[in-house]
Amino acid sequence: MKIFSGTANPELAREICKRLSIKQGKCQIKKFANDNILVKIEENVREKDVFIIQPSCFPVNEGLVELLIMIDALKHASARRVTAVLPYYPYVRSDKKDQPRISITARLIADLLEAAGADRVLTMNLHSPQIQGFFRIPTDNLLAAPIIISHFKKKKIENGIVVSPDAGSAKLAESYARKLGFPLAIMDKRRLGDTDRVTVLNIVGDVKGKRAIVFDDEIATGGSLIETAQTLIKHGVKEICACAVHGVLCGDAITNLQESIIKEVVVTNTVRIGKEKMFPKLSVLSVADLFAKAIERIHKGQSVSTLFSNHLEFAK
Amino acid sequence: MKIFSGTANPELAREICKRLSIKQGKCQIKKFANDNILVKIEENVREKDVFIIQPSCFPVNEGLVELLIMIDALKHASARRVTAVLPYYPYVRSDKKDQPRISITARLIADLLEAAGADRVLTMNLHSPQIQGFFRIPTDNLLAAPIIISHFKKKKIENGIVVSPDAGSAKLAESYARKLGFPLAIMDKRRLGDTDRVTVLNIVGDVKGKRAIVFDDEIATGGSLIETAQTLIKHGVKEICACAVHGVLCGDAITNLQESIIKEVVVTNTVRIGKEKMFPKLSVLSVADLFAKAIERIHKGQSVSTLFSNHLEFAK
Amino acid sequence: MKIFSGTANPELAREICKRLSIKQGKCQIKKFANDNILVKIEENVREKDVFIIQPSCFPVNEGLVELLIMIDALKHASARRVTAVLPYYPYVRSDKKDQPRISITARLIADLLEAAGADRVLTMNLHSPQIQGFFRIPTDNLLAAPIIISHFKKKKIENGIVVSPDAGSAKLAESYARKLGFPLAIMDKRRLGDTDRVTVLNIVGDVKGKRAIVFDDEIATGGSLIETAQTLIKHGVKEICACAVHGVLCGDAITNLQESIIKEVVVTNTVRIGKEKMFPKLSVLSVADLFAKAIERIHKGQSVSTLFSNHLEFAK
Amino acid sequence: MKIFSGTANPELAREICKRLSIKQGKCQIKKFANDNILVKIEENVREKDVFIIQPSCFPVNEGLVELLIMIDALKHASARRVTAVLPYYPYVRSDKKDQPRISITARLIADLLEAAGADRVLTMNLHSPQIQGFFRIPTDNLLAAPIIISHFKKKKIENGIVVSPDAGSAKLAESYARKLGFPLAIMDKRRLGDTDRVTVLNIVGDVKGKRAIVFDDEIATGGSLIETAQTLIKHGVKEICACAVHGVLCGDAITNLQESIIKEVVVTNTVRIGKEKMFPKLSVLSVADLFAKAIERIHKGQSVSTLFSNHLEFAK
Amino acid sequence: MKIFSGTANPELAREICKRLSIKQGKCQIKKFANDNILVKIEENVREKDVFIIQPSCFPVNEGLVELLIMIDALKHASARRVTAVLPYYPYVRSDKKDQPRISITARLIADLLEAAGADRVLTMNLHSPQIQGFFRIPTDNLLAAPIIISHFKKKKIENGIVVSPDAGSAKLAESYARKLGFPLAIMDKRRLGDTDRVTVLNIVGDVKGKRAIVFDDEIATGGSLIETAQTLIKHGVKEICACAVHGVLCGDAITNLQESIIKEVVVTNTVRIGKEKMFPKLSVLSVADLFAKAIERIHKGQSVSTLFSNHLEFAK
Amino acid sequence: MKIFSGTANPELAREICKRLSIKQGKCQIKKFANDNILVKIEENVREKDVFIIQPSCFPVNEGLVELLIMIDALKHASARRVTAVLPYYPYVRSDKKDQPRISITARLIADLLEAAGADRVLTMNLHSPQIQGFFRIPTDNLLAAPIIISHFKKKKIENGIVVSPDAGSAKLAESYARKLGFPLAIMDKRRLGDTDRVTVLNIVGDVKGKRAIVFDDEIATGGSLIETAQTLIKHGVKEICACAVHGVLCGDAITNLQESIIKEVVVTNTVRIGKEKMFPKLSVLSVADLFAKAIERIHKGQSVSTLFSNHLEFAK
Repeated sequence: MKIFSGTANPELAREICKRLSIKQGKCQIKKFANDNILVKIEENVREKDVFIIQPSCFPVNEGLVELLIMIDALKHASARRVTAVLPYYPYVRSDKKDQPRISITARLIADLLEAAGADRVLTMNLHSPQIQGFFRIPTDNLLAAPIIISHFKKKKIENGIVVSPDAGSAKLAESYARKLGFPLAIMDKRRLGDTDRVTVLNIVGDVKGKRAIVFDDEIATGGSLIETAQTLIKHGVKEICACAVHGVLCGDAITNLQESIIKEVVVTNTVRIGKEKMFPKLSVLSVADLFAKAIERIHKGQSVSTLFSNHLEFAK
Repeated sequence: MKIFSGTANPELAREICKRLSIKQGKCQIKKFANDNILVKIEENVREKDVFIIQPSCFPVNEGLVELLIMIDALKHASARRVTAVLPYYPYVRSDKKDQPRISITARLIADLLEAAGADRVLTMNLHSPQIQGFFRIPTDNLLAAPIIISHFKKKKIENGIVVSPDAGSAKLAESYARKLGFPLAIMDKRRLGDTDRVTVLNIVGDVKGKRAIVFDDEIATGGSLIETAQTLIKHGVKEICACAVHGVLCGDAITNLQESIIKEVVVTNTVRIGKEKMFPKLSVLSVADLFAKAIERIHKGQSVSTLFSNHLEFAK
Repeated sequence: MKIFSGTANPELAREICKRLSIKQGKCQIKKFANDNILVKIEENVREKDVFIIQPSCFPVNEGLVELLIMIDALKHASARRVTAVLPYYPYVRSDKKDQPRISITARLIADLLEAAGADRVLTMNLHSPQIQGFFRIPTDNLLAAPIIISHFKKKKIENGIVVSPDAGSAKLAESYARKLGFPLAIMDKRRLGDTDRVTVLNIVGDVKGKRAIVFDDEIATGGSLIETAQTLIKHGVKEICACAVHGVLCGDAITNLQESIIKEVVVTNTVRIGKEKMFPKLSVLSVADLFAKAIERIHKGQSVSTLFSNHLEFAK
Repeated sequence: MKIFSGTANPELAREICKRLSIKQGKCQIKKFANDNILVKIEENVREKDVFIIQPSCFPVNEGLVELLIMIDALKHASARRVTAVLPYYPYVRSDKKDQPRISITARLIADLLEAAGADRVLTMNLHSPQIQGFFRIPTDNLLAAPIIISHFKKKKIENGIVVSPDAGSAKLAESYARKLGFPLAIMDKRRLGDTDRVTVLNIVGDVKGKRAIVFDDEIATGGSLIETAQTLIKHGVKEICACAVHGVLCGDAITNLQESIIKEVVVTNTVRIGKEKMFPKLSVLSVADLFAKAIERIHKGQSVSTLFSNHLEFAK
Repeated sequence: MKIFSGTANPELAREICKRLSIKQGKCQIKKFANDNILVKIEENVREKDVFIIQPSCFPVNEGLVELLIMIDALKHASARRVTAVLPYYPYVRSDKKDQPRISITARLIADLLEAAGADRVLTMNLHSPQIQGFFRIPTDNLLAAPIIISHFKKKKIENGIVVSPDAGSAKLAESYARKLGFPLAIMDKRRLGDTDRVTVLNIVGDVKGKRAIVFDDEIATGGSLIETAQTLIKHGVKEICACAVHGVLCGDAITNLQESIIKEVVVTNTVRIGKEKMFPKLSVLSVADLFAKAIERIHKGQSVSTLFSNHLEFAK
Repeated sequence: MKIFSGTANPELAREICKRLSIKQGKCQIKKFANDNILVKIEENVREKDVFIIQPSCFPVNEGLVELLIMIDALKHASARRVTAVLPYYPYVRSDKKDQPRISITARLIADLLEAAGADRVLTMNLHSPQIQGFFRIPTDNLLAAPIIISHFKKKKIENGIVVSPDAGSAKLAESYARKLGFPLAIMDKRRLGDTDRVTVLNIVGDVKGKRAIVFDDEIATGGSLIETAQTLIKHGVKEICACAVHGVLCGDAITNLQESIIKEVVVTNTVRIGKEKMFPKLSVLSVADLFAKAIERIHKGQSVSTLFSNHLEFAK
C-alpha cells in the first residue's frame, strides 16, 4: 500500500499517513513556466495498491487536472490499483440539469477520473447520494455523521431545534434531528436565478425560544447561512450554531461568519483550512481517523460500511 | 420517424401517435411456451429515427427485458437512432446506496439501455434529477408540472396548503407551493427498515383549517399517503387532495384510496391505468400531448426545454 | 470464495455448496409492492471470488433481471471477481437472425451480463457452441455428456439407434451415436413459421425394430418430441427413450410426456424441477458435482476442460 | 457513396462497381521492402458512405491486415461510415472452442474490425449463422441460395437426391433438398483430430440409383468431398455434382477435383478464382449482382432482407 | 454550424467567425464563489455541427477544464457533432515518457477530450506529428508553414541560414531551410534535468557572416532562444530572427526578448497575445483565415489537407 | 509465470527462457491448407502471468495475426495477465500522418493488441518515444543503449565522430555522441516521395579525417546507409561503422552491406537473424539478457526503468 498526496490538502494527507503509521509516497509536483503541471512519481509503485488524497480545494481546477495527471502517471507506472481519495468531491453541487444546456459536471468528473485510470473512489458526504451512481467503478461514500453527532452530543444542548436552511436539505436536517432527539424546522426560502442571492420567505415549524443548529453539507460564502441566522433571531431563536461537513469558506466567509450572530461554526477538515482561514468561532473536526480506517479496510478487503453503520439514515 | 410501442402502455403510445398523425410502427411481440420473448420488427427501419414507448408498468421486469430486446432488434436492423421513451423510468427509486451492498439499480438500467444500443432517452419526472447523470447518452427529462399546476389552478382552491409527505420530498412540494401561491407543511415521518411501514411523528408547519394538497412523485400502495391524510385530519385539515405524476397504484391501492378520507387522487397516464384500475375519486391527466411535442422536437432538432421553461424550478 | 444463489434454482445451489463444503452466501432478495426487485448482499464480499448460481428458469425475465441486479450489487460491493453460473443459459435458442429484424437475444444477454459487471461465465451445453463467441469475458461451457453417456451405458441397451429429432441436431446426435456405438437416424422435419407446430416428413436412416434414443439439447413443451416418437413407432421402432440436458418442461409437457408412448425421459437438473414437475417416467441426473468441481477449479486456477476431455466431440 | 477494393478480389470489386455504374475509389496499396503495407486513399472521402470489398482470399492474413489498415485510413480521413464487405468472411470456420485453449478467431476478427473502426459488415453465407452475433455493429449476411437454386433448377435433374457431407451440414442440405424437392441423405463421417483426414463410416438414407448433389458452404482441398463421392458411387449413386458457396480451392484441389468422379463443381466468385484456378468441370456463379444490390440498398436505407426473403430457411 | 468560444482566445474566435460571416454562439461562462465553472449554452444546438475554439493559454488548467465542461454541455444538449478547435494543443510537449513514472499528458488530454464527448479535434503544428496517433477520433493538424514561409519570402533575406535550436528540432528546421533555399545549422546543446536551464556546447554547420533565422515550434520564456542568439553572434552571425508558431511568451519573455540581440520575433496568434504582451520586435501573423477555411471545409465535408498540400514535408 | 513464443524469433525466446531458467510454454501453431492459422495452447494457463515473445519479423503480417490469435487464445483460456513482448514493434515507422489519408498504423497495432486482450506491452527502442502514448495499457520501452555503448567503448575508437543519417535522427545521434564523447555531424538529406530513394545534399559538421559511426534505429535495405557512407568517404572520412538496434536487413541488404565500404555493421537480435542472413561484417549483440531481466522485474513488480536509468537521454 502506498499513499500519495496532491497539493490540495497536504495536512490531511499527513495526518492520515500518521494514523496508518505509513510513510507518504514520494512524488514531485511542479509547474513549468508555461503553466503546465509535471508529476513525477519518485518511487516504484508496480503492483502496489495506491491511494491519492486530493479533495477539491482552491484552486479547484488546478487541483483537478493535477489529480488526473497523478492517476495517469501511476497507472502507466503499473500500479495495481489506484484509489482517488476525494474527501470533498469536485463540482459536487453540479449534479443535475436544473437549467437547459448545462453540464452535469459532477458526472463529467466521474468520467474523467475513469478515463484517467482510477480504479476506485473514496469520498465523503456527497451533496446528493445519487452521485454514487455516476460511477462505474466501485466507490465508498463515508459519512461524517458519527463525528458531528458526537461533537454536539458532548455539548448537551437543551431545548435545541434542528433547522434546515432550505427545503432541499430537509432530509439531511431530519436525520440530524432524529439522532439528536430535537424537533425540526425548515426555511422556506427561494433562490432566484443562478446567483447566490436568496430571499427568505418563511419558517416552517416553531423555533421560538429554541437553540438552533443549522445543518448543511457545505458552507461556501456563508451568505445564505447568515441570512438564515438573522431570520431565526427575528423569530425568537435564542442561540445559533451552524454546522457543515465541508468548510469551503470562500469569498468573505471568514470575516462575515466571525462578525455574525452565529455563535459557533463547525466544519471538518475535508477541505484544507490553512492558518489564514482559522477564526475564533470556528471548530474544525478531523476526518483523518475515519479516512485512515477506511483506507486500511479497503486495502485489506474488509467492510467499510461498518464504519458508519449506525448512521445509514444519513445516506438516504 | 417511426414510433413503436412495447406492451407496457399501448394506450399512451396510441394517443401519442394520434397527436402526431403518424401510423404506429408494426412489430410483433410474443412469448414462446418457454417464457422467452420474441420481438420481430415488421417494417423496414434502416436509417430511420425510431422511438420506442415503454414506461415501467406491471410486470416491470418483463417490460424491461422486452424493451432491451426491442432496442437490440432495431439497432441491428440498422435504425439510425433509437430513442427509448420511458414516461415512467424503471427502478427510479433505486437511485442511491442507502444500505450497504445494494445495487443502484436506476444506474444499472441506464447501463443496460446503453448496452442494448439506445441512443437517447426521453423520460418524465425522475424521482431525483441526478438520475440524468447516470447516462452518457443524451436524455430529456420532461416535467408534468405545467399539466398538474393547470389542473389545480382551474379548481380555484381557497385557503390551500401544500403538504410534503416527508422531508425528502420537501423541495418538490415547495415548488408546487410557490407556483400555487400556497404555504408549505412537511410531515416529519420515519421509514423503519426497508419495509413500506412508516411511523408519522409530527407535522412541521401549521395546517389547521386548511385544504391540503399532498404532492409526491408517485403513488404505489398509497399506504403512507393514507396515513398522512389521517394525521392531517387529526391536525384539523378540512379537505385533502393527493397528487402524483406516476400512478403506480399497486397492491390494494385502488380500494384503499377510494375508501379513504382523501377527496381526489390526481395522477397522469405515464403508467398504464387500465379500466380495472379506474375508481371514482381518480382523475387521470394525459401526458400524451407533451410527449408528442417532445418527440417531434427531438426529431426536428428543436429545443425541448421550451416545453416546460416556466417550470424549471421543478428540476432543481 | 463465496457462492450466492438467485431464486431460480436454489436446490441446485444448495447441492453445489454441499459438495464444496461451503456455506452459501447470505443475500436478501425481495420484491416491493411496485414489482421492483431489491437485492441486498448480507455479508462482506470485498476482494472475494464470487459465484452466482442462476440458470434460466421460469419466470425467465424476472430471473434475468434479478441476476443482473445481483452482479451489479456485488461489483459495487467490491467483489474481486464475479462469475455468473448459468447452468441453462437464458435465450439460448435466440442465437441467430433467422428472420429479418429480430434480435440475437443470446448475444444481447452476453452484453447485458458484461454491462452489469460479470467477469466470467460458467454455463453448460449451449444450444450452439458459437454462443461462446458472444462473450468478451472468459467463459467455460461444461458438457453433460459424461453424465448422460454413463446413464445410458449402465442400461446396456441392445439393438439401439440414436435419433436426431431434426437435421439441425444431427451433429449432436452423431456424437452420442459414436460414444454409444449405435447407428444414427435423422428426422427430416420442417418447422413452419415461428410457431411450435411442425410437420414431420420422413425418417432418414433405418429404424425398424430398433430401440431408439432421441437426443436433443432441451425439452420444452415436448410437442415435437411426441410427434417424433409417434412417427418412429409408425416406422417400426420397438421402444423410445428421450434425453435432453435441459428439462425446460413448459406448457403441458408433464402430462403429455407421461401419457405418451415414450418409455423414459432423461434430463438433468440445470433447470429447476420442483416436486410439482416430477412424473414417473422422468429421470433427473444431477450436474451439481460437475459444477462444484468446475467452480473449485476456476477458483484455484486449474484446468476446467479436463472435466470433460474425453467428450470434446460434443463441443464441435 | 464510394467503393474501394483491397487486393483480395479486384475482379469482383470491378464487377460490382460496373453494375452500380460507379467509378471505383482510387487508393494506393503497396508494400515497402520491410514487408509493411502502405495504404493511401487518393481521393477525398469526408462525410462519404464508403464500402471496402475484401473477401478472405490467399494470402489470408495479408489481406486481413490490409483491410484493417484501409478501414483505419478511411475513418481517420473522416469517412462518415465504413462498411467492410467480406463476401467470404475470414476464419469463418474458427467459430467455436471445440478444443481447449484455442481462439474463436472468427470472433476475434469481429473485434479487430470494430477496433479498426468499421461501422457495418456485409458478408455472405457465414459458416454458422451465429457468427452474426459476434458483432456489435450491424451486419448483413447475404444468402447465395437464390443464385444456386436457380442454377440447379435450370438443369431439371431427375431422380435427384441432396447429400450432406457430414452431420454438421445436415441442416443446410435439408434446406436445399426442400427447395429442390429432393430427398435427403447424410454422410455419417468422423473427423479425427485437427487434421483434414476423415473416415467415412456410413450413409444415412437411401441413395441407390440417384443423381446426387453434395452441398457444403465451402470447398477447401476437396479431399473429403472426393471421399464422399467415392463412397456414394460405391453405394450405387449414378452421378455426382458438388456445390459450395465459397470456392477456396486450396492445395491440390484443382487437379484432384478435375480428375475425380465428380461431374460438375459449382461455386460462386466470393473467393477470387483467377484464370490459373479455372478447370473444365468448374462452374462459377457470380454474386456481383447480389452484392451490388445490397450495397445500393444499404446506402439508400432500404431493406436488404428482401433480396433473399424467399430463402430465409437457409439462415436457420 | 455553430461556433462557440471559451475564454482562452476570444479575439481569435471573433476573427474566425468574422471571416466565416457567422454569428458566434451565445454561451455564458462564469465562476461561482467556490471556484467552480458554470457553462450555460444559451441557444438551441440540437443536431447542429458545433465547433469550440479554445487553445491552451494562461491559465492552462482552467482553460482545459472549461473546455471539457463546454463539450459535455454541448453533447448533452444533443449537438450532432462537437469539434474541439485547439490551435495550440494543451500539454503538447508532454508527449513521451522521458523520465520514469511520468504521465504522457498530451495523451491523457486526448483521452479526456474523448471522455467528455468530443467527436473531432482541429489543431495546429503539434510538437511531434505522432501526437495525432493519441486520438481515436478524427483529427486535423493544420500547418502554419504557408503563412510563415510567405512572411519570410517577402523579406527577401540574402545570405540566410536556418538554425535549429537543438538536435530534436533539426527536422523541422531542415524543412524551413529547404523551402527558403537556405543552408542548415544545428545547435548541439544539452538540456540538464527537467529545468529550463540549458548549456550550449557547439554549433554544427557554418554560420559565419550569415543572417540566421532560428525556428522552433513554440517560444516559452525565450531563455534558450536568447542563449542560442548569443552563441550565434559569438560565431559571427550578422543578424538573427526568431520564429515559432506558438507564442507562449511566459515568464519574462517579453522584456528579455525585446532587450535581446534578436532583431525580430515572429509568432502566430494561436496563443492569445493581449495588448500587454505586444512589444516592438514582435510580429504576430494571424491563423484565423486558415482556421476559418478548415472549419468550413470540415463542415462541408471537403478535403482539409489541400490547405497545406505544398508543405507536407513539415508533417514528417 | 509462463513464456510462450510465436514463430517470429524462436531463438530469442529460447535464449530469454534459458536466462530465466524457465521452461518455454507449450503451444501448437499451425496453418491449415486454407491459410488459416490455428493456435492451441497446450498447457493450463489459468491465473498465470503470461508473456508472448513475438517481434515484427518477416513475414510481418502473418506474425502479427498469429500474435493476435495467441493473445486471444490465452485470454479466453483465463490467463491472469498477458504481456505482448515485441522487441521490434510492428509498423513502428508508420507513426504519423505525413501524407493525407494514410493510417497511423503503429497506433492501429496498439488498438488491435488491446482489442485482442493484451494487458501490457514490452518493447524496445520505438522509432519515436511518442508511440508509447498510443497505448492505454501500461508499456515498457527498453533501451538497447547500454549494450551498444558498451560495445563501442570496448573498441576504444580514436578520433571518432557520430553521424546522423538525416535531420530526423539528429537527436538520437546526439545522445550517442554525448555518451561516447564524440562530436556530431548530420546528413542534410531529402527523401523524395514514399519511395526508399534519397538524395544526399550536404553534410552539416566537419567529418574530415574522422572515424565515423552512423547510428539509426533500424537498417532495412541499407540503401540510404550505403549512400551516406559513400558521401562520408567523399568528404574525407577514414573509416565507417554503422549501427542500429533493429536489423531488419531486407531486400539485398546483406550483399550490399557486405560489399560496401562500411567496415562493421552492428545490430541486435530483436529481429530474427537466421544463419542465411549472417555475413562477415555483421556483429549481432544479444538483447536476451535485458529482456529476461525486464520480464522478471515485471513479473515481480520491481522497477524496470533501473535497467537503463543511466541512458534516459535516449528516451527523449
